[in-house]
Order: sequence, then C-alpha cells, then structure tokens
Amino acid sequence: MDSAQTISDSFPITARNRVKRLHERGSYDHASVYAVLDAGILCHVAYSIDGQPYCTPTIYWREGDVLYWHGSSASRMLRHFKPGMPACLTVSHLDGLVLARSGFNHSANYRSAMCFGTARIIDDPKEKAVALDAVVNRLYRGRSEDLRPITAQEVKATTVIGMRIDDASAKVRAKGVGDNEEDYDHPAWAGVIPVRTVIGDEEPCPRLLPHISRPDKLSAYSSGRTLDEVLVEAQHLYESDVDRETASG
Amino acid sequence: MDSAQTISDSFPITARNRVKRLHERGSYDHASVYAVLDAGILCHVAYSIDGQPYCTPTIYWREGDVLYWHGSSASRMLRHFKPGMPACLTVSHLDGLVLARSGFNHSANYRSAMCFGTARIIDDPKEKAVALDAVVNRLYRGRSEDLRPITAQEVKATTVIGMRIDDASAKVRAKGVGDNEEDYDHPAWAGVIPVRTVIGDEEPCPRLLPHISRPDKLSAYSSGRTLDEVLVEAQHLYESDVDRETASG
Repeated sequence: MDSAQTISDSFPITARNRVKRLHERGSYDHASVYAVLDAGILCHVAYSIDGQPYCTPTIYWREGDVLYWHGSSASRMLRHFKPGMPACLTVSHLDGLVLARSGFNHSANYRSAMCFGTARIIDDPKEKAVALDAVVNRLYRGRSEDLRPITAQEVKATTVIGMRIDDASAKVRAKGVGDNEEDYDHPAWAGVIPVRTVIGDEEPCPRLLPHISRPDKLSAYSSGRTLDEVLVEAQHLYESDVDRETASG
Repeated sequence: MDSAQTISDSFPITARNRVKRLHERGSYDHASVYAVLDAGILCHVAYSIDGQPYCTPTIYWREGDVLYWHGSSASRMLRHFKPGMPACLTVSHLDGLVLARSGFNHSANYRSAMCFGTARIIDDPKEKAVALDAVVNRLYRGRSEDLRPITAQEVKATTVIGMRIDDASAKVRAKGVGDNEEDYDHPAWAGVIPVRTVIGDEEPCPRLLPHISRPDKLSAYSSGRTLDEVLVEAQHLYESDVDRETASG
C-alpha cells in the first residue's frame, strides 16, 4: 500500500472537540464515533442565526466521514442557510439510570458523539439523488427499488445538507455505581436501572393492497429487538451494498 | 380571582419559535410543551462560543417554566459562560418509523419541544441547594432524604444553570402512513414500526449492604414499563410534593 494512502483512524483533537469534563470517558477515533452515530436515527443539530442558537432534531445518515440530513426548503435552517455555516451534530443514546449513595454520584449511562463541521447544501443533482436513495436504503436495505420512484418535483422540494466531519468526539459511560469509597457503608439502595429502545409490533397500513405482506428484507425490524442493534446491522449491510456497487460499476 | 393574576396558558409565538415546516404539527400551549419535557431526562442544549455552535447532551429537569441542568465548572459551557447567554434546549422522543409507498413520504413518529431563553448560573446558595435536591427527587420521589447528604465541596464543584422559557414550541407526529392518494395502488408494503424506550431489570450495586433491598419508592421503575410513562408520573408526584411543602411551609 502506498504510504500516502494511509489514513489516520482518528479525528484531530482541537479546542472545540476536546472532552473537558470527565475526559477519561472521551475518545476521538473513527470507530468510537461511528459506533455511536450508526446506532441512531435521530440527531440534534446546533446552528446559529443572527446570534440565536437553535437545536433542531432531525433524521440523519452517514456515508464515510460525511453526515447528511434533509429538510424542506420551508425550514428555518434552510431559509437562513449561508454557505460555510458552522454546525454541530450530536447523537446521544441513554442506556441507564445510575442511582448512587450520594446525590453527587447519581449519573446516567449513555453513549454520545458530537461532530463538528461546515454544513453545505447538496446541489449536484446526481449526488442529491444518491443521497435521497441512501436515507431509505441505509435504514431499510434495498427498499428504494420497491417504492414508487421519486419525482423531479419531490427532489426539488427536498433540500439535502451534507457535513464532512472535521473533528468529533465520542463520550461513553457504561458502568455501575461509582460511589466515594467512604460512602459504601451508607445504608441506601444503589444500582443501575437500564433502559433500552426496542422495536414494537408492526402496524401495517390499513390500505395495503391484498396479498402484500411485509417483505423479508424488513425482517431485521422484528418486535423486541433493540433499535440500535438493528440500525448498526443495517448500516453495515448498506456499506457492503455500496462497496459492491462501486466495485461492479 | 383577580384578573391580573390570570396567566396565559400558552407561550408567545415569535420569529424564533414559530413552527415553519409542517406547521400543523406544532403547538405553543404550556400543556403540550410540558408533556414532551416531562417525559424525558436527556436533552440537547445549543449555545454558541465565538460563533461556533455546540450541541451538548445533558440531564435536565423542570420547575414551572424554568428548565435546569447542571455540570462541572470544568465543562466547556461553564468556562465560557457569559451572563445573558441565549440558549435553546430541545427534547425529542422517537416513537416510530413510518414506511410509505414513496421515499418522499417516509417519516418518523416523534414528539419534540424546543425551548428558548437566556441561561443563568444559579448563584444563590439556597436556590442551588433546592435545585440539587430536585434533580434527584424529581426522578426518584423522596430519595434525597435517604442519601448521604451533599457536602459544601460538592455544592461548590457543581454548577447549576437555569433558563426561564421565554418561548417554546412542541411538534408531534403521531399517525400512520400518509401516502399521496395516487400511490395507494403501488404494490409496496407500508406501515409503522413503533419503537419505545423501556426499563430493564435492575442491576443492584454489588457492594450493597446486607439486607438493603430496593425501596418501594422506586417501584415505579419496574422492568418493562416505558421510561416516558414513569417520568411523567414522577414529575406529577414531585410537583404535588413541592405544592404540599409550600402549603405547609
């Protein structure tokens, strides 16, 4: 392998992504950041308009080191969009409530990733079409080919935003109660109450055509599985499909 | 009742909180906003430092129209804190994945609330002490009295931030597939895959003192219940406790 092709497996550590508080929980390698991102579907994007910060929840997806989200041209962010708009996209998963013997040591188990970069509108029609298929296929493998094709009007009505991750950090707490040594004698109950986000029973559209049943390709979304497990699996399948298309294309 | 005491039950609608996109999903009344806030424990706060937006996940709680969160004085937000810092605190719940017959009509069911205001550091020792009990008792009724009391050093090491909600909006999607009328003949499966965040089996601290079992007051957090249901219930109990203390105090 050409040494020029060697790619760092970590994001740079800068003033804005350095984990300040409880830095032992932080990491900067791609694998740690992507593990948090790929387990989610809902992110929060922070951006400023005339000095006023906004924190907007939206669906996102990842291709390599680029994060995408989309919206209507009627949305506030897009109406005020300026080229070179700095943004911060954060994904967080709550995994448990931690009840300690002191209020101070109460905590939560979580996984989060903060990603910094410059948002840009995806104008190129080909890149935009690929992105609009991706948001479906990343979640539901091969689904776009089963759907009524997207129209030119729908493409026009949708704005896709991309943000290459310039720097990022992941922060994870995944452990039991951490009380002060002298507090373990205090007679209070302590422990972790885990929480998880799970898939429920499907609710088929009442207007399904006769003989249409849920396709096998959606079987990953089966009742009782955790959403993050399904999403990570779907991301890996999506990446392998993209690699195969690239190799054969 | 004195008419001067009549309090509006809605937040004002301003340029920053008006729901622009799919405005039929938006509302501004206190009840709608608080219903979303009270069902959560993890929020995302957006704020800017030198023009760079940050989106920070953190635990929050609500007392009336004031939102609180806390952190270490080592945190980035607090190190750069300036009085009168505008912030936006957003809470979102994902309730389902909506699979339509076109990519364009794919969606998600969700509940979200965006709250705007000016963040301030809670300096008054009495207000701060009340707030640090509240973060425990709002989640776990009456728990602070069972804990090793907070020390002066811990109070000092913790910074509590409060933000009165100046304006806010809630946005909710809670329905089935919404396809274009002409697409219902398209032979694709469509439906909703619900997701919910549920409580798992408790994991007691391995260093519990003998004969310490989980107190009845934590029974709300029982395995299989949804977290948002438990949190809303806990908030109501907390508010009734505060009202009773105020009445007897």
